[in-house]
Amino acid sequence: MAQVFADISISLDGFVAGPNPTLEQPLGEGGEQLHEWAFQLASFRERHGLEGGVRDDDDAFYAQSLAAIGAVVMGRKMFSGGEGPWEDDPKADGRWGDDPPFHVPVFVLTHHPRPPLQKEGGTSFTFVTDGIAAVLERAREAAKDQDVSVGGGASVIQQLLRDGLLHELRIHVAPILLGGGTRLFEPLGVEPLPLETTRVASSPNVTHLHFRKGGTA
Amino acid sequence: MAQVFADISISLDGFVAGPNPTLEQPLGEGGEQLHEWAFQLASFRERHGLEGGVRDDDDAFYAQSLAAIGAVVMGRKMFSGGEGPWEDDPKADGRWGDDPPFHVPVFVLTHHPRPPLQKEGGTSFTFVTDGIAAVLERAREAAKDQDVSVGGGASVIQQLLRDGLLHELRIHVAPILLGGGTRLFEPLGVEPLPLETTRVASSPNVTHLHFRKGGTA
Repeated sequence: MAQVFADISISLDGFVAGPNPTLEQPLGEGGEQLHEWAFQLASFRERHGLEGGVRDDDDAFYAQSLAAIGAVVMGRKMFSGGEGPWEDDPKADGRWGDDPPFHVPVFVLTHHPRPPLQKEGGTSFTFVTDGIAAVLERAREAAKDQDVSVGGGASVIQQLLRDGLLHELRIHVAPILLGGGTRLFEPLGVEPLPLETTRVASSPNVTHLHFRKGGTA
Repeated sequence: MAQVFADISISLDGFVAGPNPTLEQPLGEGGEQLHEWAFQLASFRERHGLEGGVRDDDDAFYAQSLAAIGAVVMGRKMFSGGEGPWEDDPKADGRWGDDPPFHVPVFVLTHHPRPPLQKEGGTSFTFVTDGIAAVLERAREAAKDQDVSVGGGASVIQQLLRDGLLHELRIHVAPILLGGGTRLFEPLGVEPLPLETTRVASSPNVTHLHFRKGGTA
């Protein structure tokens, strides 16, 4: 069965973006450092149309995960960095360029309806306004028997966790304390949720922590 | 040189204690699950006067770390679970019993002065009221060439991080989302702090993440 996994980089202190995000710097102060590990991987660079990079175990895992992804879910902020009506959003066309690095259908959770956007390289953006379960359902249909990757932001992942809609949480911990910003985990208002550790792997640049629902409670 | 390390268990969502801590349940709802990994180790059980337990790599590392500890630092809440003047604290004698599991001098950061307490098994509690640097200095003197372990709580570790007084951060991530409680990391109000990963080890019960100051920035 197709898996739905959250796939997100955080600082050791739990932030997915640094303080004071802006349209120009959507990841906030220091936030781009959370993603440096990925920039070094050959398969990440290839996906982004860049040359070079390392082909190690980490890269091999990344490439394998990528190949299994049939659709992507993201929040409005991750799409454009903006908010509110589209006509007021200076990046209404998205902040991912003409040839975005997804190469599969992307489903954007938003309050503001609009027609889909077709980009180069196989990426399309479809805007879904009827909630978290609906956007996930659309992505699963598009992915067919492949996985759905949820890239963020934090609030999208929190909603999925709260509703028990994630199969796996893939967290990439960058070795840095950002000291502030947007947290991946806010209080969920639900019972403690035991997890099963499915993967721990590390390099000097990142520690991957993968978990599924499970455990003893 | 003697090392100062923070040594603390957290949930994947970053909590060192669950919601609603009380004197009877100082770790809050679900908080004791953060420490289950340790209860399974033979050397942890031995330190607590219990029999049995597993002797694996994790246990060997734990035993080796323990043997290197010459003094412990903790906050008032970790000592007694209470707050305010000692005469109002129902656990003014501490919540660690007559033979506490430390077996070395323990230095407690508090606003309320009192004479030291001598316990069985080599544990003493000394109460330090002149701040985080002072309590650390006292512990380092007592530890001589051995390490100082800082057990918590979160606010003590945050103060040490903010003041750059920790050599190493040893975080033990339990595979659970507590969904609320006391966070290990609150915004520090300082520049991002790059770290160097010194150890990543995992078992089904826990993932150990150890970091030192360092990195590329």
